[in-house]
This record gives sequence, structure tokens and C-alpha cells, in this order.
Amino acid sequence: MQYYNFDKTAAFKTLSALASTGKDFDYKAIDAERVRNTITPMAAGLAYSYAAKPVTPSVLDALQALADEQELVAKYQALLDGETMNTGENRKVLHHLLRGQLGNDVLFEGKNLGVFYRQELERFSTFADAVHAGKITGTTGKRFTTAVQIGIGGSDLGPRALYLALENWAEVEGKKKLNAKFISNVDPDDASAVLSTLSLEETIFVLVSKSGTTQETLANELFVKEKLKKMGLDSSRHIVAVTSETSPLAHNKAYLNSFYMDDFIGGRYSSTSGVGGVILSLAFGPDVFKEILSGAHEADALSLEKNIRKNPALLDALIGVWERNFLGFPYTAVLPYSQALSRFPAHLQQLDMESNGKRVNRFGQPIAYSTGPVVFGEPGTNGQHSFYQLLHQGVDIVPLQFIGFVQSQRKDDVIVDGSESQTKLKANLAAQIAAFAKGKNDVNANKEFTGRRPSSLIFGRRLTPSSLGALLAHFENKVMFQGLVWNINSFDQEGVQLGKTLTRKVLAGNSGDEILEAYRKLLEI
Amino acid sequence: MQYYNFDKTAAFKTLSALASTGKDFDYKAIDAERVRNTITPMAAGLAYSYAAKPVTPSVLDALQALADEQELVAKYQALLDGETMNTGENRKVLHHLLRGQLGNDVLFEGKNLGVFYRQELERFSTFADAVHAGKITGTTGKRFTTAVQIGIGGSDLGPRALYLALENWAEVEGKKKLNAKFISNVDPDDASAVLSTLSLEETIFVLVSKSGTTQETLANELFVKEKLKKMGLDSSRHIVAVTSETSPLAHNKAYLNSFYMDDFIGGRYSSTSGVGGVILSLAFGPDVFKEILSGAHEADALSLEKNIRKNPALLDALIGVWERNFLGFPYTAVLPYSQALSRFPAHLQQLDMESNGKRVNRFGQPIAYSTGPVVFGEPGTNGQHSFYQLLHQGVDIVPLQFIGFVQSQRKDDVIVDGSESQTKLKANLAAQIAAFAKGKNDVNANKEFTGRRPSSLIFGRRLTPSSLGALLAHFENKVMFQGLVWNINSFDQEGVQLGKTLTRKVLAGNSGDEILEAYRKLLEI
Repeated sequence: MQYYNFDKTAAFKTLSALASTGKDFDYKAIDAERVRNTITPMAAGLAYSYAAKPVTPSVLDALQALADEQELVAKYQALLDGETMNTGENRKVLHHLLRGQLGNDVLFEGKNLGVFYRQELERFSTFADAVHAGKITGTTGKRFTTAVQIGIGGSDLGPRALYLALENWAEVEGKKKLNAKFISNVDPDDASAVLSTLSLEETIFVLVSKSGTTQETLANELFVKEKLKKMGLDSSRHIVAVTSETSPLAHNKAYLNSFYMDDFIGGRYSSTSGVGGVILSLAFGPDVFKEILSGAHEADALSLEKNIRKNPALLDALIGVWERNFLGFPYTAVLPYSQALSRFPAHLQQLDMESNGKRVNRFGQPIAYSTGPVVFGEPGTNGQHSFYQLLHQGVDIVPLQFIGFVQSQRKDDVIVDGSESQTKLKANLAAQIAAFAKGKNDVNANKEFTGRRPSSLIFGRRLTPSSLGALLAHFENKVMFQGLVWNINSFDQEGVQLGKTLTRKVLAGNSGDEILEAYRKLLEI
Repeated sequence: MQYYNFDKTAAFKTLSALASTGKDFDYKAIDAERVRNTITPMAAGLAYSYAAKPVTPSVLDALQALADEQELVAKYQALLDGETMNTGENRKVLHHLLRGQLGNDVLFEGKNLGVFYRQELERFSTFADAVHAGKITGTTGKRFTTAVQIGIGGSDLGPRALYLALENWAEVEGKKKLNAKFISNVDPDDASAVLSTLSLEETIFVLVSKSGTTQETLANELFVKEKLKKMGLDSSRHIVAVTSETSPLAHNKAYLNSFYMDDFIGGRYSSTSGVGGVILSLAFGPDVFKEILSGAHEADALSLEKNIRKNPALLDALIGVWERNFLGFPYTAVLPYSQALSRFPAHLQQLDMESNGKRVNRFGQPIAYSTGPVVFGEPGTNGQHSFYQLLHQGVDIVPLQFIGFVQSQRKDDVIVDGSESQTKLKANLAAQIAAFAKGKNDVNANKEFTGRRPSSLIFGRRLTPSSLGALLAHFENKVMFQGLVWNINSFDQEGVQLGKTLTRKVLAGNSGDEILEAYRKLLEI
């Protein structure tokens, strides 16, 4: 298998030559037939609709040729088979293996990692069941009613987004076992505020740090331990650790239990490991977490399809590349018409921008083309009353990713003016897609909508554990495929290191750096 | 006073000629003296530091000349004096007048609007005091313990961001009177979930819609009324309205009380009217809300200063224009190192993108230059473990707006490795500013930081009601000044209309529009 820079491929030239096809795309010609013919089924009953994306059959053919030339599916298979895809850090990339096996056995230092991951899954499933059964309790013997995750970045955004996505579903389906809360920021107001609302004797903490050295997480751990101590509670009966086996948190009697992953599970890809699994299994039960895994696994399997028209993650990735590199759009907005997905855009922002916000290729050489876009978003319809003004009538064009569901989660609704709120929600979604694509002429330029603003739609029947898992894996795989197109390493994050180094310098005393010392003075550090 | 398109000004030419000064700005030369000399005091003890922005004295002089040529401060004064600045809708723009008077009396249809706004402020202050004293209760006579805002867009994001910003401060300062919750989305899961957690007999609802016709808000109002009815509660004893006097919600016996604003208070600028004032006065007491107003008023007064080096909102606006129009950056990130400001970026996203996401000038003519950028952000240090990778090592440059405070709000902290968490928070902030500006050379390109990424810092002693008010008004005035530079109307939002029209079409039955009908089928509307 060969790894080429994107601008060295034949497909790059073909696509460059086609750019005007995208720029002049006839949005007004989108009709019912195009909507019907531009739907790619996704896993777990979801579907990807790209009628309102500026792609013609010839563009799709060129994107297919790109996928073939760059051997994107073969490279994904190599990743599944355990090849060292995180080149910078010399690591395998194995988050798919957490969900099921789609390649060869992956062996490392004599260990079958698929077996190891499944064992850990069963270990924390059993643990969660014991908590729910009241067999494991805190210091005073009271049952745990709340689980609090202590983690940051990948140990926070993904698990938090998934928890919020299913909290209401679980409640109405009778699956809610424990409340979950999250402490992430080193800002002491975060931990202090969360802890002030809790009955600590009924609280179990999930301390998550792969390395066991994350500054914020260790500070918050001690914050929690001091509060437990003040209440006369034994912290070793209230904290479990999720970490790697080589971390200082591992095999440590200071914790009630410890669950393990390894360096082959990147933070932003770790929601389907113990990083997300422990808190979600405690909150909703291990069966619900396993349904998330099963939806994700189905999406992972679908991503092996070589025909881009049948592989939604690959297709989504390639359309994104088309928009980024040939149509020149530097951002993309994620707009879920589902309040349950309120923090899903923040997770995708991390997933995408941390993975593909790179300016060197997988061999560490600078590249000369655009990579990952800026990603942002808020739930609809809220966003409609906020930043959509710029999306509709701004000078620049922002590609849009809509997400919507036929049914609500709670099925608790009201009829006003002849329609349910869920119907209004969906009507708004349909209206926005049409408005962005087609616009509206008006003699008053201030009331004119130029339209021609691309969007795609992921839709399904209801947001459930399996469709949520499929949605999560769809975006993980999309980001992976884009990284492979761009020939970058989507699995490291060297860009976070310099800040850490300079922070340590500031904390160690006089840094000897004039600008650091000047800001130390301003902020009274 | 003359209103010119930006590209017709002499300053536009001067700044264009200076662009290379910004592009070649020597970030490595930033030293302690520059940091000291590039601080502009703001209201309420805050300060704006722009050492790490690519501006030289000659650029600042050219920006001063732009401010003078475009008569920005005189136009602001005209706005304060009640001139019709919302040209598209033929309306005055009077949100500053809510905070205090800085110009002539503003009269409309025989009414002195400053007097009217103060009367309403006193009316809802008295009302909140009566609720706190237990003189006003719900149907069962129990005291209100929770206030729930029903509103969307400007009636949600700003008030919610301000509530979250002060919730912890209020708790530790003994000012917390009621809990506040928010229902915004037409997604029925939003209202259903919020209501499921409440004791309705102890809940007062604040229904906010200026027009009294907002689809989402009316649907959620009925949602609430049905739940109240089911509990045997009289909704007219549990709901107050905040609206204009001409709306169907006004002077309506269906509500416990009604408080008024008018068409001269735009949604995204309405946090300091009853839209934010009623819920914040209920939550924290009217005195706290008046402190917010006082901080905002101080910022408004400071914005009248003609010397841009002494007018932080104007300076911030002009540096933003410099980056947008001459250095070509299409986005900006807002990064508060304060968990309390977790939703402040979402408010600023609305404020900025809805105000300045425009492609026609104030006379309704298309313009040929860039206007408002895409705005996004999350609190630090959380963002450091998320999208900062792209900010540090991405292909494109994203200008950054940091915000930080010397002290935490709750003053509940822990010492780990010799420093408090608040100190770590600030050390991270200082480190990031330095890292983004100066970067780091490395023989390994993957570990290299090119630096040269601009940022500014707003800092202060502690986030309090008055500093929060100053912060809010700073950004409102910044956005206003940018709109004046671009010669656009920052106070209308025609871009939200088409979606509303098409939604009504879908809800009314067969829309006769092929694409709408196709999506109706997909989403089973």
C-alpha cells in the first residue's frame, strides 16, 4: 500500500478540473427524484441524504476514483488489522476493535487485544451490575445514586454527549439507573459547583486518564478526595479508575476498582472504551452500552464497502473533501434537530478539529493543501434564532450537516395550531434544507436569499442507543477517511504539547520567558 | 452624517496598503514593554490586552483614521439619541437606554422611552421582591422555588448565559433566591425533560416573546399550561409574560403579570431588558440585576471615547475588521478561562453572527467585502484538550479572544503539586497566549509550532454582576461598531424569515413545493 500526498494523486487533478461543476451546481434543479436517488443507508436504520450537496454523477465518479486510487478502504482494513496507523506516536489505532472484530486478530506483546478489550468490557459490565444490585456501595453502605466522571477532552466531551443523548430515552424506557455528572475543567468553580449539589455518600466517581498524568484530572481528583475526607468518607470506596495498565492509577489500592484500555485507543475515539463505557454502564446499565457498541460496529462494518455510494462514512468524507479543497469552504456546521444531541456538536468539534487540524503529512512533512475545517454547531431550532442569519445571508458559505429523527425520545408532546411540537421540529428542518438550497428572489436585496448553500441530512426513526452508536462511528470513520485522503495522521495531537510545557514553566516559578512573565503579572499568577 | 460603504473610504485604501505590516507582524518581538503598553482599561475593572494582535502603531493610526472618517462615535451618539439606526425595519435601537441615559431624551408617540424602560425595571423589581417575600405565590400558596424561562434565541441564549455566569457567584455570596431553568427548543423533549424535574406548584414561568407570535415559545407555553392543568394548578397564577405592549400576550388576564419592552430592543440585545431582567431578578434579586446594568452602562459610556486607544469596544471592533478584511481570517474563537462563562460563547455567536452576517448595506444594496466572521468557542482549559490542535497546528489561522479572571467565583480550591487549581487555570491561559504568538521550532515538523496566531485577552479580578455587565456591553458595542464600519444594519435579521415561511407551508399541508414534499416524506411529517 502506498501513501501519497493528496495533491500528487491523479484524482486531485480530475477534481480540480471539475471544480466549476460544484461552483455552478444547479440547486434549483433539486427535485423529488434527486432526493430519492441520493440516499445512502447507514447502520442501525439511519440514512445519509445528500441531495442538497453540490455533487453531480461525474463528481461522484471522480470521488470514487479518488477513493480507489488512495486505497482508502484497504487502508482502513489495514488499520483494523492492527497496522501502525498512528505513525507519529508509533501506535496502532484500535477503537473499532472495542466494538467487534472486522480484521485479523491483533496481537501485541503476546496479548490478543480484542480479547483484552472484551474482558475489560465484561469486567466493568459486571461491576455496574453489582452497583445496581446494591452489592457494591460506598462507605456508609448506602446505594450509589449518582456517578461523576472526572476527565477532560476525550474523557469528557464524548461520554458527556452520549449521556445527554440518552438520558431522556433511558428515563422513559425505564433504563435510567444512576444520574451522571461530569467534572472536567481545572477551573475550581467546575468541581466545586458539581460537588456542592451531591450527596457524597451516595456518589461514585469515575476517574479517567489514560496516562494517569493529566494535570486537570489529577487536580480534580484531589479536590474530590478532600471533600470525601471532610465528610468522613473513604475515597477508596468511592472512586474507580479508567486508565492504561502502565499508568500510576493502575493496580492501585486507592481505588475501588480499575478498568483498563491502552495507548491504541485515542482520547477522542475512546467513548466506546471504558472511558465512556463505565459511566454509561453505571448510568443506563451495561446492556444499553452494548447496544451503542453494536450500532457502532454495524457502522464500522459498513465502512468497509468500496462503492462510495453504498458507504455513507466514506461518501460523507469525500463530499467534505470536495467542499474543503475544491470549493474552498473553511468551516462546517453540525445542526442536530434533537435537543438530546445538544453537546454532540462539541464532541464532533473535538473529533474533527483535533484529528485533522494538521499541517504535516503522516511522515511529518509540511503539506500544501487545506485539511480539517473549523466545526461548530448548536441544536435546531435554537440555532435558527441565533447564527442562521449568517448562514442564510452572510457573505461566505458554510456547509451544513443536519441531523433529525422521525420521533421524539420522550413521546410527551402537545398539539398547538393542529400539529405536535415534534412535527413542527421536523417541518422546520425540511424548510431549512429547502431554504438554504433554493433561496428566494426579492426586489429588496435585504429580503433576498441567494440560496446555493449546501447541506446534507442524517435521519432516522428515533435516537436510541444503537442509532447513537451508529451516528458516533459514522463521524469517527468519516474523519478517518478524510485524514487518509489528506495523507495526515488523524490519531496524534502534537498541537496540545507546547501549551502544556509552557504551563509547567509558569507553575515552576520564574519561567525566564519575558512574555510569560508579563502575563503572569497581569493575571496575578 | 454620511454613511459610506467601507470600500469607498480613504482609510480602506490606507489599510489595504498596510496589509503586509499585519501579515509580517513580528510576534517574536512581543516583550514585557509591549504587553504593558497595549492594555486599554474597560468598565467595571476589566481590561483589554492586545499585545498579541498583529497591530503596529501605524496600523492603529490608520484604524483611528477609519474611526474618524466613518464617524463611528458620532453614529453611536446618534443611536443613543434615538435616530432610526435599524434602517430595514425603520426602528430606533435603544438597548443602551435600558442601562442609563447617554444622550437626549428619546421620545416616541409622546412617550419618553427612558422613563418607560425605568418604570418597567422598577415594576419587575418590585414583583421579584414580592415573590421573594412570599407575598406572591402559586395556586397552592407555596412559595416559588424555581423560575423557568420560556423563550428562544435572544430570549434564551443571553439570559441563560448570564444566569450560568452568576449562579455560583450568587450561591457563595448568599444572593441566590430561586433556581432558574430554561425551555427553548420546539423539540418536545426539551420542555418535557425540564418539566419532569420540577415541583410545578413551586414554579413560576417567565414567558418571553416580544411579538407574542414566536412558534416555538407558544408551543412550549401550551406544553406548560397542559402540565399545570393536569396538576390542578391555575396557570394564570404561575406564568408572567415579557412582551411588547402590542402583542397578544400583553394586558392579558391569562398571566399573573406582564412586563413590557418594545420594538426598539432587538432580541439579541435584550438581555438587559425584562427579557433577561425578570428571570435574573427572580433568581438573584433585583439589586444583582441592577449591578449588571450598571457595569453595562459604564461600558456604554466608555464607548463614546473618540481615541480608539482609550475605547476598548471600538478598538476591539477595529482590530477585528483589520483581521477580517485585510488579513483574511473568516472566523474567530471566544475562549473564556472561566467555567461560569460556559454558554457565553453561544450568546456571542448569536450576537455577532445574527448582527453582522449580512451581505447588503444599511440601504439594502449588495456589498463587495467581508462582514461578520463565524464565531465559536468553549471554555478553557476544556478546549485545550479538544479543538486547540487545529488552532495551534492547522493550515489556517483562527484569531482568538481569551477571557480570564484573577480569582475564582466560589473561592473553593485545592492545592496540588504546590499550586491551586485557579493558579493552574491562569498559568494555562498565559501559556496559551505565548504559545499561539511565538510558537516553537522543532526539527520534527510534526512537533513544530509556527506560532503567529493572534489573540487578545480580556481580564479582570473576578466575574461579578458588574464585570459581567461590562463584558456583555463590550461585545454588544464591538459588534455595533463593526456594523457601522461595514455600513450594514446590525439590528435586523431578515435571514430568519424564509425558513419561517417555508415551515408554515409545510405545516399547512401540501406545500406544492417538490423539495419540501420530498423531505416531508423522508421525515414522515
